[in-house]
Amino acid sequence: MSVERLLEGLDRHEPAALARAITLVENQRDGFEQVLSHAHSRLARGGARRVGITGPPGAGKSTLTERFIQHYRAAGLSVGVVAVDPTSPFTGGALLGDRIRMESASLDPHVFIRSMATRGAHGGLATTTEEVADLLEAFGFARILVETVGVGQTELDIARSAETTVLVLVPESGDGIQTLKAGVMEIADVYVVNKSDRPGADKLRQEVEVMLGIRRGNAFRHVSPHHTTQPRMEEDGGGRERAGPVGAIGEWEPPVLATVASRGEGVAELAAALDRHYAYLEASGRLAERRRQRLAARTRAVLERAVRRWLVEATRAEELLAQRLDEVVEGRRSPYDVAAEILDQIKAGAAR
Amino acid sequence: MSVERLLEGLDRHEPAALARAITLVENQRDGFEQVLSHAHSRLARGGARRVGITGPPGAGKSTLTERFIQHYRAAGLSVGVVAVDPTSPFTGGALLGDRIRMESASLDPHVFIRSMATRGAHGGLATTTEEVADLLEAFGFARILVETVGVGQTELDIARSAETTVLVLVPESGDGIQTLKAGVMEIADVYVVNKSDRPGADKLRQEVEVMLGIRRGNAFRHVSPHHTTQPRMEEDGGGRERAGPVGAIGEWEPPVLATVASRGEGVAELAAALDRHYAYLEASGRLAERRRQRLAARTRAVLERAVRRWLVEATRAEELLAQRLDEVVEGRRSPYDVAAEILDQIKAGAAR
Repeated sequence: MSVERLLEGLDRHEPAALARAITLVENQRDGFEQVLSHAHSRLARGGARRVGITGPPGAGKSTLTERFIQHYRAAGLSVGVVAVDPTSPFTGGALLGDRIRMESASLDPHVFIRSMATRGAHGGLATTTEEVADLLEAFGFARILVETVGVGQTELDIARSAETTVLVLVPESGDGIQTLKAGVMEIADVYVVNKSDRPGADKLRQEVEVMLGIRRGNAFRHVSPHHTTQPRMEEDGGGRERAGPVGAIGEWEPPVLATVASRGEGVAELAAALDRHYAYLEASGRLAERRRQRLAARTRAVLERAVRRWLVEATRAEELLAQRLDEVVEGRRSPYDVAAEILDQIKAGAAR
Repeated sequence: MSVERLLEGLDRHEPAALARAITLVENQRDGFEQVLSHAHSRLARGGARRVGITGPPGAGKSTLTERFIQHYRAAGLSVGVVAVDPTSPFTGGALLGDRIRMESASLDPHVFIRSMATRGAHGGLATTTEEVADLLEAFGFARILVETVGVGQTELDIARSAETTVLVLVPESGDGIQTLKAGVMEIADVYVVNKSDRPGADKLRQEVEVMLGIRRGNAFRHVSPHHTTQPRMEEDGGGRERAGPVGAIGEWEPPVLATVASRGEGVAELAAALDRHYAYLEASGRLAERRRQRLAARTRAVLERAVRRWLVEATRAEELLAQRLDEVVEGRRSPYDVAAEILDQIKAGAAR
């Protein structure tokens, strides 16, 4: 199918065209940037919201996602889901059983669920996930849920590309303080203790609240003249927009909620918290600010990827890499000498 | 300190020079590639082995690392440790308490421990970690332990750069099958159920063994003419070298061991398994094969990084990105149009 026909299909709102467009983008086939550029022209309409859902394996994120779908559908909103499953080179997604069942069960045309395997994706996964979310938004879905399994850096980058990030924990997530140490705790806008009918749920909630309180305490010390300010903290202040007041509206205080997703308990309250967070982002001006930051980061990522593709496809870089490999393996040259040589050739135009 | 003096310090085997070299490499300051190139010329000597230790937070990896240090020191081997701690933009490494205590406690000149924060590192963390390990190896450490907290893609990439990867789990890691689903299970050469005196340890061990058995079952079906071969599996075969026989030596069968690291139980057995795996890599020819693959991947990564730096420092790419951002934010142009324009200018030499 030509890219033109694909774009026509998207404009006619054909789900098959959407599925094809996603595959094109996932595999970065010819024309994928044209499709994304087309999608971008349809994003500014507004109305769509993106929610990132992250947390350790077994926290019940998929169940929670299903409940969100029900909740939003009941409110007449269409829902697109991008689920990023970390899969090994071996299974290649074979363990996506749950997800596949969920996908095939979804006969509602106002629901679209897509799984992405992390297999083979290096570095660019966060960008690709965001691009798939763009396709869903451009297609007209009102709520985009981006679900990532795992608590690593890549997963966090993915979850953060959403307007609101939800971190889902369960009492059995592990020793409380160790979970906090993973550092991922502090990235969320809304915290959820799922399976909150299990032992240890209240304790975990309290621990998370204490941890968030500690962080707010730090943020306070940061601006107080009575305490010495640590350089580390100043440096970090710019990383996330939460430290320090913005305009007339104060800081967002991340709530810690309890759910039993399997029974649907607490889901409406959670959805209400997401709405409050979105309203906060709008009222504080942070929605526009985040959008600008995201677009700047995206443009940079797209450029870097384009440069990488250019190196591979249109320069002699690959050929030179292959030619020099023996010398590197034999220890006659270092990867750094070889990279410098190839870069020089690229600069000089000689590698083209 | 000039790079020349730093290199002299490294040649004189000064720990202070090593610490400075690592900082230089971590921050990619001027001359870092020269230092790494110098280190590379000292790697081919051989003898050093790298072990990646990964697993979820709270699995006891730090304790196990300490036990490894004791074990190797008792055997007269020097040990270098690179610990990659995922830290949030907020704490910026403030939660590294344990690690810092461990570092300051290490007065043994044959032990060197270095923590790296993931803060701010995007995409390049695996490369930087490997480069720090190179510095440790070039300095002469006989065993390099690369410890990563977390079970995400980045953490796996880091752990995999070692010759042998150990995955540490604990009974409370979460529902067994969910942990398996995280997909990270299948990347290891050696599995460890730590805190194996706790309830559920045997069950977890069995689950891991079953999971590994299932994978081997799949690998068998893959080559059997009596079963249809799934395309997915063929595609995956190349990802890791374990599927299918190599030479006269069969597949490595990853053992599942039990430890109680806090009491040192099972550590000698674990170290013996690491030795067996290394011997297997040598005898099967996979050590050389992996080394070649690693060097090829590294040279590519170094080139990509060098190109990125060149874009930022020596072309007008950044300036153009900044100029076009408003148009992107206002929806007049897409990130893809802008990236294509800038790439065209880079190609034409006009952006220089």
